[in-house]
Amino acid sequence: MRIAIDAMGGDHAPEAAVKGALLAVEHYSDLEITLYGDEEQIKPYLDPKHSKIHIHHTMEKVENTDEPARVVRKKKNASMVLMAEAVKNNEADACISAGNTGALMSTGLFKVGRIKGIDRPALSPTLPTIDGKGFLLLDVGANVEAKPNHLMQYAIMGSIYVEKVRGIKNPKVGLLNVGTEDQKGSELVKEAFQLMQSAPVNFVGNVEARDLLEGVADVVVTDGFSGNIALKSIEGTALNMFSMIKDTFMKNAKTKLAAALVKSDLKGIKDQLDYSEYGGAGLFGLAAPVIKAHGSSNDRAIFNAIKQTYHLVEANVVGLIGEEVRQLQQREGS
Amino acid sequence: MRIAIDAMGGDHAPEAAVKGALLAVEHYSDLEITLYGDEEQIKPYLDPKHSKIHIHHTMEKVENTDEPARVVRKKKNASMVLMAEAVKNNEADACISAGNTGALMSTGLFKVGRIKGIDRPALSPTLPTIDGKGFLLLDVGANVEAKPNHLMQYAIMGSIYVEKVRGIKNPKVGLLNVGTEDQKGSELVKEAFQLMQSAPVNFVGNVEARDLLEGVADVVVTDGFSGNIALKSIEGTALNMFSMIKDTFMKNAKTKLAAALVKSDLKGIKDQLDYSEYGGAGLFGLAAPVIKAHGSSNDRAIFNAIKQTYHLVEANVVGLIGEEVRQLQQREGS
Repeated sequence: MRIAIDAMGGDHAPEAAVKGALLAVEHYSDLEITLYGDEEQIKPYLDPKHSKIHIHHTMEKVENTDEPARVVRKKKNASMVLMAEAVKNNEADACISAGNTGALMSTGLFKVGRIKGIDRPALSPTLPTIDGKGFLLLDVGANVEAKPNHLMQYAIMGSIYVEKVRGIKNPKVGLLNVGTEDQKGSELVKEAFQLMQSAPVNFVGNVEARDLLEGVADVVVTDGFSGNIALKSIEGTALNMFSMIKDTFMKNAKTKLAAALVKSDLKGIKDQLDYSEYGGAGLFGLAAPVIKAHGSSNDRAIFNAIKQTYHLVEANVVGLIGEEVRQLQQREGS
Repeated sequence: MRIAIDAMGGDHAPEAAVKGALLAVEHYSDLEITLYGDEEQIKPYLDPKHSKIHIHHTMEKVENTDEPARVVRKKKNASMVLMAEAVKNNEADACISAGNTGALMSTGLFKVGRIKGIDRPALSPTLPTIDGKGFLLLDVGANVEAKPNHLMQYAIMGSIYVEKVRGIKNPKVGLLNVGTEDQKGSELVKEAFQLMQSAPVNFVGNVEARDLLEGVADVVVTDGFSGNIALKSIEGTALNMFSMIKDTFMKNAKTKLAAALVKSDLKGIKDQLDYSEYGGAGLFGLAAPVIKAHGSSNDRAIFNAIKQTYHLVEANVVGLIGEEVRQLQQREGS
């Protein structure tokens, strides 16, 4: 298997990408990785004995300030663009970047293209639940003007991914809404509700944002605007609460003693809520796996994203999505 | 001042409503309260010496399972409906219920009516920030199909409320979006952004859900669908984290000792995040203050909702909103 990685994306580039790649080629004997980026910066982290890691040198890279839609045209030799082109040219089976999310969505769409029958790709991270199982949330921002049919396609894509890669049999698919009753919500979700009832997924109905971390569903479908709000509300609340707890423990001698006593246990909560353990966010609906690793990814998070990508390719998730959509369209056409 | 209260709404009815009312009439010498509900259930909590609390007896009440739109027609004598009717008939200046949110929105709209020039009322709670200042989020679900003009009106209503009742001078108004750049988001928020730039508010641009608890704005405007998702994501994450922390502290003798040492300090975090301290959620845009207290309100939370309502009436927020909207329409018409 061949995976292309943008070594220049993310806060800890290129170190995290190179070290993550090293962990991965040690883990999977049939894996070859090509790192796209500045050879001078990549080499110091690379042990020359690893013949399964290749470097594709380029000096150009995508910045976080670059306008996503213009990257493909204006930065033809950026590490992210060349990485996606490798997938397009069949030189790699999948690709990963921790860089500019908008640019990756746009580059993926233009270079890798969509699965036939899928109207819009969806950015799909796995978020933590308190039981440690996690849930897939899609879309979190690839498409902020979703139509009911898009949401139904997200349900199909998410369901296949969670079953094949995360090993959850017959995953529960919920529709994010303002209440759990069938008739709730905007016209968009009311129509999507109808479509999802007859879709080839285990649809459990409407779910509320309050119940997401309790694992109310394995796949939660929503439009990119609401999904982005949900994701960032959860992240922001968790981060702020951790910082409030930290401040509380630093208050005085008594609280510092308490902190010493529970430090490792509280670290457990933090680990449980650390969603880089589940890999990156898939751009589901593209014609090959394109994975967005978190911008703050360290080597461990990059390794997890590579593992996830490996299983996506191995289980042929893209092919299965294409097949399911083709069958659905045949049924509708007949 | 005369405030009407639905004594039969909420998890702790009627005890919380009656005890909250008692606290309020002791606090404000010019306040008279009428409690709507079952006299038999209300009286045990009422000290007869309080001549400023009246009972309007009715046996009928709105259940949480009642369909909101049908309550006004089907339950004409429900405590919630009679309470709103008292405002309509000018027998009360404002009203409060901890009951069925949808039913209160519908009853408020039909009985109390809208401010002239306001198209849609907005359900508007104040949420906590880590600095303790709090921010107003509107709408969180009164109107799930918002138009750009509605969002602009929310900005005006929220800004007046926060300035006059919460005492924040020239409050910062933000538009909830998927990024902070000016051109981000759906067509709805892009158009609302343009309108808000020329609205009579201190518009600070787009804000992200991740930064809400850090107090990025004093008023955060969004459509009712996204606002509901943000509110419930924040609530759900905070509640789940508290329960994870509690479980961690109960693990063994060592963690229990730590818990004893920091119990009061951690309670401080919980209090800081307890948004019933800021009162209930206003249904801004109605022709008189209608306040939704949290369903789980205790007497203290009801007292806070009454204080908030008292200041809403005293500062003539409804009148000021009407005046601002009238002036805006004149400017647009001229």
